[in-house]
Parts: sequence; structure tokens; C-alpha cells
Amino acid sequence: MTEFVSGRHFLQTPGPTNLPDRVMRAMDRNAINHRGPEFGVLGREVVAKLRWVFQTTATIGIFPASGTGAWEAALLNTLVPGDRILISRTGQFAHLWEQMALRLGLEVVPLETDWRRGADPLAIGAALAEDQEHRIKAVCVVHSETSTSCMTDVPAVRHAMARAKHPALLMVDAISSLGCADYRHDEWEVDVTVAGSQKGLMVPPGLGFTAISEKALAAARAGGSRRSYWDWAPLVTANKTGYFPYTPAINLLFGLNEAVAMMQEEGLPALFARHRRYAEATRLAARTWGLDLQCADPAACAPGVTAIRTPEGHSADRLRAVILERFNMSLGNGLGRIEDRVFRIGHMGDLGVLSLIGALAGVEMGLQAAGVPHHPGGAQAAMNFLAAPG
Amino acid sequence: MTEFVSGRHFLQTPGPTNLPDRVMRAMDRNAINHRGPEFGVLGREVVAKLRWVFQTTATIGIFPASGTGAWEAALLNTLVPGDRILISRTGQFAHLWEQMALRLGLEVVPLETDWRRGADPLAIGAALAEDQEHRIKAVCVVHSETSTSCMTDVPAVRHAMARAKHPALLMVDAISSLGCADYRHDEWEVDVTVAGSQKGLMVPPGLGFTAISEKALAAARAGGSRRSYWDWAPLVTANKTGYFPYTPAINLLFGLNEAVAMMQEEGLPALFARHRRYAEATRLAARTWGLDLQCADPAACAPGVTAIRTPEGHSADRLRAVILERFNMSLGNGLGRIEDRVFRIGHMGDLGVLSLIGALAGVEMGLQAAGVPHHPGGAQAAMNFLAAPG
Amino acid sequence: MTEFVSGRHFLQTPGPTNLPDRVMRAMDRNAINHRGPEFGVLGREVVAKLRWVFQTTATIGIFPASGTGAWEAALLNTLVPGDRILISRTGQFAHLWEQMALRLGLEVVPLETDWRRGADPLAIGAALAEDQEHRIKAVCVVHSETSTSCMTDVPAVRHAMARAKHPALLMVDAISSLGCADYRHDEWEVDVTVAGSQKGLMVPPGLGFTAISEKALAAARAGGSRRSYWDWAPLVTANKTGYFPYTPAINLLFGLNEAVAMMQEEGLPALFARHRRYAEATRLAARTWGLDLQCADPAACAPGVTAIRTPEGHSADRLRAVILERFNMSLGNGLGRIEDRVFRIGHMGDLGVLSLIGALAGVEMGLQAAGVPHHPGGAQAAMNFLAAPG
Amino acid sequence: MTEFVSGRHFLQTPGPTNLPDRVMRAMDRNAINHRGPEFGVLGREVVAKLRWVFQTTATIGIFPASGTGAWEAALLNTLVPGDRILISRTGQFAHLWEQMALRLGLEVVPLETDWRRGADPLAIGAALAEDQEHRIKAVCVVHSETSTSCMTDVPAVRHAMARAKHPALLMVDAISSLGCADYRHDEWEVDVTVAGSQKGLMVPPGLGFTAISEKALAAARAGGSRRSYWDWAPLVTANKTGYFPYTPAINLLFGLNEAVAMMQEEGLPALFARHRRYAEATRLAARTWGLDLQCADPAACAPGVTAIRTPEGHSADRLRAVILERFNMSLGNGLGRIEDRVFRIGHMGDLGVLSLIGALAGVEMGLQAAGVPHHPGGAQAAMNFLAAPG
Repeated sequence: MTEFVSGRHFLQTPGPTNLPDRVMRAMDRNAINHRGPEFGVLGREVVAKLRWVFQTTATIGIFPASGTGAWEAALLNTLVPGDRILISRTGQFAHLWEQMALRLGLEVVPLETDWRRGADPLAIGAALAEDQEHRIKAVCVVHSETSTSCMTDVPAVRHAMARAKHPALLMVDAISSLGCADYRHDEWEVDVTVAGSQKGLMVPPGLGFTAISEKALAAARAGGSRRSYWDWAPLVTANKTGYFPYTPAINLLFGLNEAVAMMQEEGLPALFARHRRYAEATRLAARTWGLDLQCADPAACAPGVTAIRTPEGHSADRLRAVILERFNMSLGNGLGRIEDRVFRIGHMGDLGVLSLIGALAGVEMGLQAAGVPHHPGGAQAAMNFLAAPG
Repeated sequence: MTEFVSGRHFLQTPGPTNLPDRVMRAMDRNAINHRGPEFGVLGREVVAKLRWVFQTTATIGIFPASGTGAWEAALLNTLVPGDRILISRTGQFAHLWEQMALRLGLEVVPLETDWRRGADPLAIGAALAEDQEHRIKAVCVVHSETSTSCMTDVPAVRHAMARAKHPALLMVDAISSLGCADYRHDEWEVDVTVAGSQKGLMVPPGLGFTAISEKALAAARAGGSRRSYWDWAPLVTANKTGYFPYTPAINLLFGLNEAVAMMQEEGLPALFARHRRYAEATRLAARTWGLDLQCADPAACAPGVTAIRTPEGHSADRLRAVILERFNMSLGNGLGRIEDRVFRIGHMGDLGVLSLIGALAGVEMGLQAAGVPHHPGGAQAAMNFLAAPG
Repeated sequence: MTEFVSGRHFLQTPGPTNLPDRVMRAMDRNAINHRGPEFGVLGREVVAKLRWVFQTTATIGIFPASGTGAWEAALLNTLVPGDRILISRTGQFAHLWEQMALRLGLEVVPLETDWRRGADPLAIGAALAEDQEHRIKAVCVVHSETSTSCMTDVPAVRHAMARAKHPALLMVDAISSLGCADYRHDEWEVDVTVAGSQKGLMVPPGLGFTAISEKALAAARAGGSRRSYWDWAPLVTANKTGYFPYTPAINLLFGLNEAVAMMQEEGLPALFARHRRYAEATRLAARTWGLDLQCADPAACAPGVTAIRTPEGHSADRLRAVILERFNMSLGNGLGRIEDRVFRIGHMGDLGVLSLIGALAGVEMGLQAAGVPHHPGGAQAAMNFLAAPG
Repeated sequence: MTEFVSGRHFLQTPGPTNLPDRVMRAMDRNAINHRGPEFGVLGREVVAKLRWVFQTTATIGIFPASGTGAWEAALLNTLVPGDRILISRTGQFAHLWEQMALRLGLEVVPLETDWRRGADPLAIGAALAEDQEHRIKAVCVVHSETSTSCMTDVPAVRHAMARAKHPALLMVDAISSLGCADYRHDEWEVDVTVAGSQKGLMVPPGLGFTAISEKALAAARAGGSRRSYWDWAPLVTANKTGYFPYTPAINLLFGLNEAVAMMQEEGLPALFARHRRYAEATRLAARTWGLDLQCADPAACAPGVTAIRTPEGHSADRLRAVILERFNMSLGNGLGRIEDRVFRIGHMGDLGVLSLIGALAGVEMGLQAAGVPHHPGGAQAAMNFLAAPG
């Protein structure tokens, strides 16, 4: 954009999300010695805060990496080439996880979906039941598929595994759900949860998080693939001392520390309720416009992002380009097999009611400017919904 | 507010206005020696930039003060106790100017208005015509009355003065118009223009500006009241060297330098057109709600602020309190004789279309939440208007 | 400076002083509505904090102005043209105060000094004793003369006034002492203390402070000169509500709030001891270099600034220019009658031991680079002194 | 540190280094859509800038990772388990690289050193000459061993390889030399250079960089180990488009963009000369103190860091603790086999002459405070050296 544009850009992608001023200011300071006493305090503090977010007492990993790196760590620490994993193909991020697994030498047992719903616990249970020899070593699901805005019911998956009495590890990608939707690493008996900094956690991209059960740690101790950077072995000690085995991304940790402090001020119940409310308002707008949600299962709509389909023959990417140019707003694009067919509105993290309405107004004005058939009134419908106390 | 509120506060007061990130970052640095060479460069640069904003080659004053201080400087430098000035009582800021003049020992010839329109050039002309002895030494008008959102036609006032062949100085308060509405200090032959940092100029409060004609400077040299802090005498030299006769508000000047750079990137025509467009959208919303504008003269509505009247019996302050608490937005309050009768929406400075719609949505939701009778659809009307290319 | 210079500039002027990162970050946020509830809390908080700094329960004024403005307020509120004030001519800032008084129509009874010591309490007492008719309405002294780095003993001045049983108001300029040296507005029975933001208070320039005794307030209520901007009348209420009668310099107040919070963390005794220690180290360096201090009275050396004389025939300004160009450090220049004869090292506010030594090293290297005769070893002497626990 | 400490912390570790204000401010902004047009511009710009730093036209990798991650990428992309690499054991970072190689299944041919000099090109040549079957696939050297402050002569290593007509890849860790010492990826025919953000590049930790020759890229295309996160395959395209195959660490890239802009303003020759000068001043101080440098080869002393040995029986860690507590400065600790035997002074990146002297003064005062035998005058010797024009 060479032309001057007044006012704040509306960053409504499903990650990176809007950075609160407090988080940006917390990062705006000199680095500190990562081997000095001040860092140890910080390190222990961010571990404790992430445990609060993951609702866990498990071992925590914080990697200078994108969330993808934390995925890779999960696979490398617990599995060896030739191991089989079960993946539900719920969207682009499940697809990328599968591709990674194949590159790392794993075998993948895929379960298809139409990318319009979460993983099917019954299908997972059935696949596990068939696996009498327990060759499947891990069940991998994406809690909130950022590409489709569909949620998977993680407790139901865990129940299906229990019913099948199958010993596989349960691995969950919570990258775009953590900090938006209730997520209970311990209560749900998840073995490895993977997350990142740039979505519900309101920190710039560059940190990959993981919560690791005792069972997963034991699997890592007993074997796993060749690894160095991603090795979990030093984490148990690092969690206690606050010092990392590598140079940590210090300033991003300053930001993380402040961001979770904000989440603690809001409180998890309020945080989750707010996201549900924003998602409901967004879906009301979409319905009013007469546009289809990518998520076809009403019970599975994500709280942090809403993927909306443009009518047949209307490019979602062109719509997004018009909105960017005319209304100074960034939306998420369609990925993989739904490229150019959906646009995604991120409503995660630091966001107020009036900004959400402004964003929905921008979509509605963009639909008109781009000539995409729709009924007006979506932003108004969201307003009517949001005018009532939350 | 002790309760946590997510997302950006909507600061829609008519000053202070939203500070662009670039301006805040420019101020976020150590101070510099105000007698060193780096400061001289900065001082000359901000003088040149303010001249661009005032559309003038006149002498520029930059006081560490609020805009009120620049007013006081105007009166003290050019007038002596007992001098008579003509003031059009167009609103609260004209009223405060009058009060100041009285406290400084001046006599005031007031021209009444109903606070719903700008100053009347005909009335000014008539008053001057009556003043055969030229006892009136200055005509004082407020370009954009921030309290009522009514504009005064400054060139028409100047023409009225010319027709009356009256030698009084023309003094204009452009505090809430500079940077929002076309303002031509030289072309309009204004003698003293007074402005401040925290409105269209997008800088925090703390700087008072003035542009001073040769005629006004000559009056100051010839006399004026006792003065020290506000003395204009050192300004001519200071404009050349870039050094001020007192410790300048260095970091605010860093902000000013960046803010006017942004205005120069946008360009004055685009800047003024944008403000007109936002004001029109805001008035469309008000009309749709069925609420009266405080400004009863359609030709005089201000581009930077819109004062809206609540229906009889409905407190504007309660409405603002509900909006602040429920929707995290600050609006301007009614001042003086229209206290609690109007609320004011600021749409000056750094503001995008989607934020404006969010703000109008917040007003509309607030009207509903506070039980103020209105027709819905105001934000939608603004959207419809703003969806068309600007 | 068009050439690239690596590393932090050493800002060792006696104001503006180095802004702590915490203070800069506190100012790096959007403004807030100065008539909303959040502002009231801030306003009351900064008043309480300034009282702590002034060691007073008196009425506090905070003007969007330089410290000079707070001076002008002191004179205008309590005196009328023709009133007589006693000023001790201790340096350039006393001189400027005198000039201001004359411009405001006051008569000045001056007491001469050689600009190398503080005001003489005995001389003040004698002058008051002579003033049988009590025509002198105020005694004005500068606590720390920033131009000479000499302190005046304020309690001794008050005792001299008491001994003379003279009813004049005692007015003190504490601009460069507040936050560096012990200052007790109440215990010392000062009537008006004037200060600014950009020295010991570690905030950018742009705020003028004042503490006002009941006696001074009563004088203001009873009369004083014509005034508007500087009027103290609204302060009593403003101190209670936290709201100011004009648009306050909001972001500077954010900075002030954080700066005094830092001072409170350090504690006044530690703060004053630190400044005394830095001043002693600086004088040790000067003595080692064989250079004269401008302050000829060892008991009167200021804790926040040290003015050092260059040998006859050696330009202090050239020395400063060499130091700026070669070593990226700003020092204070000689003012008024000692222009080009002294350079001033500021050691106020946010400053650590190693930075102070770096600054002294820069002076020593500058003396060498500029060919100013001196003995080396000054920085080393300061190191030896500072190596011992403080 | 719970006690209040005034003034700027002296961060004199050899990474993280001091972040320039410009770099911190550049990162202090909202993230942007990493798939939008603005990001592509940024991505291409940082690639071009890194090429300038590496003095190369090669393919550039930028990983959200510590420098260690870029190492791991180098090994995984070009080698398969069982491959043999030659590593010169010059210090702790060479040691860690070796450990990583072993964990990834590689065989290591080590060349010992006493950790007090760089790698020996003759020894490397001899080892390669013996390797008639060309089983050694890569020669790995550390350009500046951060743990010992010894440089390896990379062109000499390349010449030794050429003389031995050995086809192994040349891999260089330039983590603490890039941006401090002349480094010529192309001219020296290095195959893989690895670097990080937090040393000479003046950005917080969190980015790993690599420059990759055509030969290395070809090796990667032809094989290498199983990999996903670290795969170089997408880099060629990413270098052209500016888009990364994963979510990039956006705000760190903002910082990188500004940091290299600053380096370009200074220019590489000035940048390198400045670092050499600071290192020389630091060694002068050490020699004056009578302390041994860890680097025993005068021709191999690093420009960015100086490791100094404490006398036998005197703990370097206790010295550092005293310096941290008493003088608010962080120094680097001894690592691995020289733990507690050396302390390291970082003088990389954004650093001015006066800060360097302050740092050396802090070491000298710390030696005294900790009772470490030494001769005073080290800081003075550095001053004398630095007083002369650079």
C-alpha cells in the first residue's frame, strides 16, 4: 500500500491476531542475560502461566519456533520412522500435519472428512478397534481447524480411545483454540498438546508451546526419533529452573508473560464466553448475508475464527483484496482445497465489541463493493445480538 | 474501570483524539539537548510543517501549554486592559474566551447566538459599522465550535470587516478545525490563529500553536499587556534558528513532527475530504436515529465533531456512561448551557472507516441500552454511505 | 549529525535528563478522555505523588507549561504591579526570574552575588530588617541554581525572615533540586515552590509544578495581578477531583505517574544519597583534572549538576562541541555572564554508576581531544570513589 | 534484584546484545497478515538485507528458531545418518555442534584444540588428505567461538580444503561474528553459513539465519536426512516471493529490517573497524589488569567478545555476581570446561565508546570489590587508546 491510509488497520486474520498495547510495550525493552537471575524468574513465571492456560500440571515446552515446530517435536520425541499414526483429515492443518508425519517417516492412517466438520470420534474408535496389534501409536486431532473453523470434540475422542482400550497417545493441535475455547489438557487426558503464540495468546508469532503428559514423556525417554533441537529431555529440569537449553526468544517471552497476565485478569470463563459471543455474532451476520459457513455442523463452530463461503463463481480472494484496499482490513484466505472459496474472519484474542462490528461492517461493505450477491443487514444483526449484555 | 475489558478503547471525543502508532513511537525516545544542534534542526522543521498546516508564511508560536494558553498569548500581546473586543457567543469555547478576556481586563462586545450556528458575519459587520471610533480592537471568532460542532465562515467575517473598513485584528480559534477543515491563515487575512496539538494534529495535549500576521506582530511590538511567558517577541528569531526561549516540550515536538509528516503523506485535500465524509456519515446516522443535531445550520456542520441532542428528558451524560461501561467508548459531553443535553462524537484525526462505523454502532447500541427513544439503522445508513468510494 | 553513530547518546545536560524506559513506555499509549472517570483517578494520583515529592500537604498546581510558567503563576497570583520582591542574584535563572518580574510590573530589590555561591541568608535578613514598611512582598530564591550548580540554604533563608519578623512570602525555585536534594516545602515553611518535569523528575519537559501554602493561596484569593491561564483559584477543587480546568498534558502525566512511582521504589533517602555520591565523584574528577568548580563554596555544591570552569583562554563551548562530535555526549553550556566559561555535567535522575563513569571519561577524553590543559586521572578518581559501597 | 537500581542496565554479554531503540520501536507495532501484500515486501527486503550482511547472492534461510536451529537445518538437509563430518573442537559451541551431529546419527571426526585458539587449517588439511575415500562430507568450523573469543581463519580453511582437493561441504558457524567481523560467504566459498539474530545483528533472540551455496542446495535436493520444519526446499521460492512456508516471526523481522538498515547506514568497513577498536581497547584493559586472555593467539582475538581468565583460585562466577549486584552489569559466563574460569565481555552491536569505558570501569571496580588480584588502570588504558580518533 503506497497510498496513505488513515486509522488503524483491522487485522482480522485468524493469527496473527491483534497485539494488545500492553503486550507490545512489554516487548519494547532491552533483552536480558538469559543465563542471569532475572531470566530464571521470568522462565519459571511463563511456565506457570502456560500451565494455567493449558489447565495442566504437565511438563511445558516453549520453543523458539512456529507452532509447526512444536508439532514436529511431538512426533520426533515419541515415534520412530515406520510408526503408524491416525489422523483425521479435517482441514488444511491436519493435512500439513500428515505431510510432516510422512516426511518424518511415519505411516499415516487417514480418516476422511468433507472439511466441514470436526473429527468423528466414532470413526476414530472404529479404526482403533480394528487395530488389534496396536500398531497405531498416536491419534492426532486438530481441536480447532483454523482453515475450516470446525472444532473436534477432544473428550469424545479420548472416550472413543478408552472404549477401544487402545494405548495410542492422544495428540492435539490446539493452536487456534488455546485461549479461545475451553481446553483441559489434564482432565481430557491429552498426551501432547501443541500450540503457538500468535492466536489466542496475543503474542507475535515465534513461539511454539507444548504440554506433555507423563506417558508421552516416558515414550520420549524410551525412544523416539533422532532429534536434537526438538528434544524434550531438558524440559523437566528447565521447567524447574526457568532456564532453557538454548537461547530463548527473550522479548517474545516478555510479551507472553504480559499476555497471559491479561488473560488471568479476564479469567478463563469470561474469556471463553466472550469468544463464543463474538463467534455467534459473526455467524448471525453470515446467515443474514445468506452466505454458507464452511462449518456445516452447528455444534462444531469454532469460537475464534469463522470461515465463510462465497457463492459459487465468486472469488473469495478478490473479495479479500477489495476489502483490504477499500476498507483497510485483512481477512484470512482459503487454504488448500478451499482456496479462493472461503474467507475467514478471525475474532480471537484482544478484541472489543465495536471493533468486531466494524470488521463485520467491512465485510458487508466489501461484499457490496466486490459485487458478491448477499443480503444486507449482517452487521446490523450482529449489533442487535451484541447490544444485549454478554 | 476495575473490570477487565478486552480490545481497544474507542476514544471518540473531540480531543484528545486517537494518537497514531507512528506518533506515539516517535515520542517514545529519550529527550535531547534543547540547546544542541539536533534540536535546531527539529525546531526549524516543526515550524515549517506548522506553516504548511496553517497555509501560511507567518510567524509561528509553539507554546508548552494547552490551546487556551495560545489564546491568552493572543490577547496579551496585542491588547491592553480596557481595550474592546468583539466576540460572537457561538458556544462554550467562545464563552471561555470571553471569560478570559474579562479576567485580563478587556471589555467585551458580545454577539449572541443560540449555540446552534456559527458567528453571523452580517451581525459582525453591523457591530463594526457602529463602532465609528474604532474602539473595537479585535474580532474574535471560533472556526469550529467544539462544543456545538458549528463552523463559522471565516472569509465571510473577514469580508464583513473589510466592508466596514474596520482596522480591528481578526483572531480565530482553529483549535478543533486545524487539520480537519480547510484553513487558510494567509489567504483569509487572519491576524492571529490559535490552535492546539490534541485534535486534528493527532498529538497528545500540551502544545498551543499560533500563527501571527505582520499586523498583529506590529501591534505586539507597539504595546500590548504586561507579559513574559506568552511574549511573542522572541518568536521571529526562534522561527529562524529553531531554538525556543524556554525549555520546549521536546517529546511532544517529536510527536508533532511525525504527525504532520503523516498529514503531508495524506495531503490536505484528501485529509479534508475524508473528514467531510466522516461527518456526513455521522449526520446520516443521527438523522436515521431521529435525533437532532446541535448544529441547526446544515451549511455550518463541523467536519471533525458532531454534537447530537438527546430527546427531551433523556440525559446525554447517562447515555455516555452506559456507552463507556458497556461498549468501551468515550464520547464528548455537553458543555455549559447544553450540559447533559448533547453528546459529541469526535471523528477527527487518525480514524478509519471501520472504526467510525464501530463508533456509530456503539452509539446506536448505547441508545438502546440506555432506553433513549430512537429509530435503529443509523450505523447501517452510515455503512451504506461509506460503502461507496470516497 | 548526519554520520552514523553507534550506541546510546549520553545526555548529561542538567535537564532534560535521561528518561527511564519505564517512563517512556508509560507515555507510549493512546490519550484518554480528560473528563472521564479514568482520568480523575490519574489526576488524584499524580497530585498525591507530587505531594510526596514536595514533602507537603499543600495545594499542588500542575500546568501544561515549562517551569518558567509556574514561576509566572507564582508572581501573578500573589503580587500586583508595583509590588516589591527581593531576589538574590545567584545565577542565570535568578536573573531570568528577575527579568520576568520586571516585565510583569514588579519592583525588584536585588542582592548581588558572584554567581559562585548560594543566596546569603544574612544579606536577606538585613534587607528585610531595613524594610520596616514591609513593602517587600516576596523573597525569591533559587534552591539549586542550575547555571552555577550552587545551592541556597532555604531553611536558613526562612530563619532569617523569621528573625526579621517579616511577613513576605517565601518563594523557591526548586526546578533542578526537586528529586535530587532533600526538599521540604512544609517543614521549611515555603509559601510557593516552583518545579518542572524534566530534571530530577525524569519526565520530558512540558509540565510546570507548584506547591502553594495556605498563606500564598490566601494572598491569591485576596488579589494578585490579572490572570487567567495561571490562575490558582481552580486548583483546590482540582486537587480533590483530579480534573483540571484546562486540557491537561495527559501523556506527560502518564510519564509523571510512573516516574514518581520509581522514585517511591527507590525512596527519598536513597535517592538523595545517590545524587550526593554522584556529585562528589564528579567533583573528585574535576579536582583531579585541576579544573575549578564554578561553585566556590564547598558546602553549597549541588547534588544534581556540576558546573566546571575551563582554564582562561579555553572555550567551554568548543570543548562541548568536540565531546559531542567525538564521544556522542551532550553537556550543559555556560549561561549568561559565564557563557563559554563553564560546562555543566548533569547527574540527575535516572543514572547508574557505570554511565556516570562513562560520562566523566568522555569529559576527560574531550579535554585531551580539545587541547584543554588538565591532569588525567579524573575518571579514575571517580572510579576509586565509586568502587566503595554507596 | 528486588532492590531498586537507578539507570540503565549494562548488558555486556556476548548475546543477547543491546537492542537499539530504533530496533525496539520497529518491533513495537501490531503484527501484519503474513500472507498479505505488505508482508511480501518485507520478506523480500529482509532477504536482500541479509544477503548484504553475508556478502552473498546465495539462498537465504530465516527460521523462527535460535541459531542452533539453523545448525540443525544445515546438518539435516545435506547429510544422512552415518555420514562423517570433521569438526574442530575449538570451544563450547563447537562442542555443542558435535553433540548435535551425534544425536542426529552422524559420525564425527574431531580435531582437538586447547580452546585458546581457532581451528588449525593445517590439521584440517591433513585430516582431509587422509580421507582418500571422501567419507568426510562436511567440514564444520566456528568463525568466532563465543565461548573462547577465538577466531578461525575461514579462507585458510577453504584453501586447505582446496589443496586437499576434497569435495566436503564447508559449514561455518558465524553466529557471533556476523555483523562484527568481515564475513564473505561467496568470496570464501562457504557452503553453509549459520547465524542468529541476537548478536551482531542487534535483534532479540528468536531468528536463525543461513546462507546456502548452490552446492549445498544441490546436496539437499539430492538427499539429506528426514526433515520437515528445517527443510530448505521451499527457500528458493520464498526468497523470490518474500513469503515463508510457515508463520514467520513477524515482529522480529520488523526488528531485523531496521537493524540491518542501521548497519547499512554505518557501512560494513566502519562497522568492522569499530568492533576491532573496541576489542583492542578491551584487551588493553585486560593486559593492564594483568589478567590472561582466554585467546592465546594474538592474531585470532575476536572483535565482538573478549574472554578473560581470572587468576587461579578466583571464581569468575563470583566476580560476575559481584559486578551484577554492585554495578548493574551482566557479563558472559565461562562455559563447559572453562566454567567459572573466565568471564566474557561482549562488545558487539549497538555500543558507544563511553558505554564501553563504563563497562570496563565496572569490571575494574568489580575486580576490586570481589578481591580478585589485579593492577588498576585498565579502564584508563582503554580511555587513552579510545581518546585517539578511530
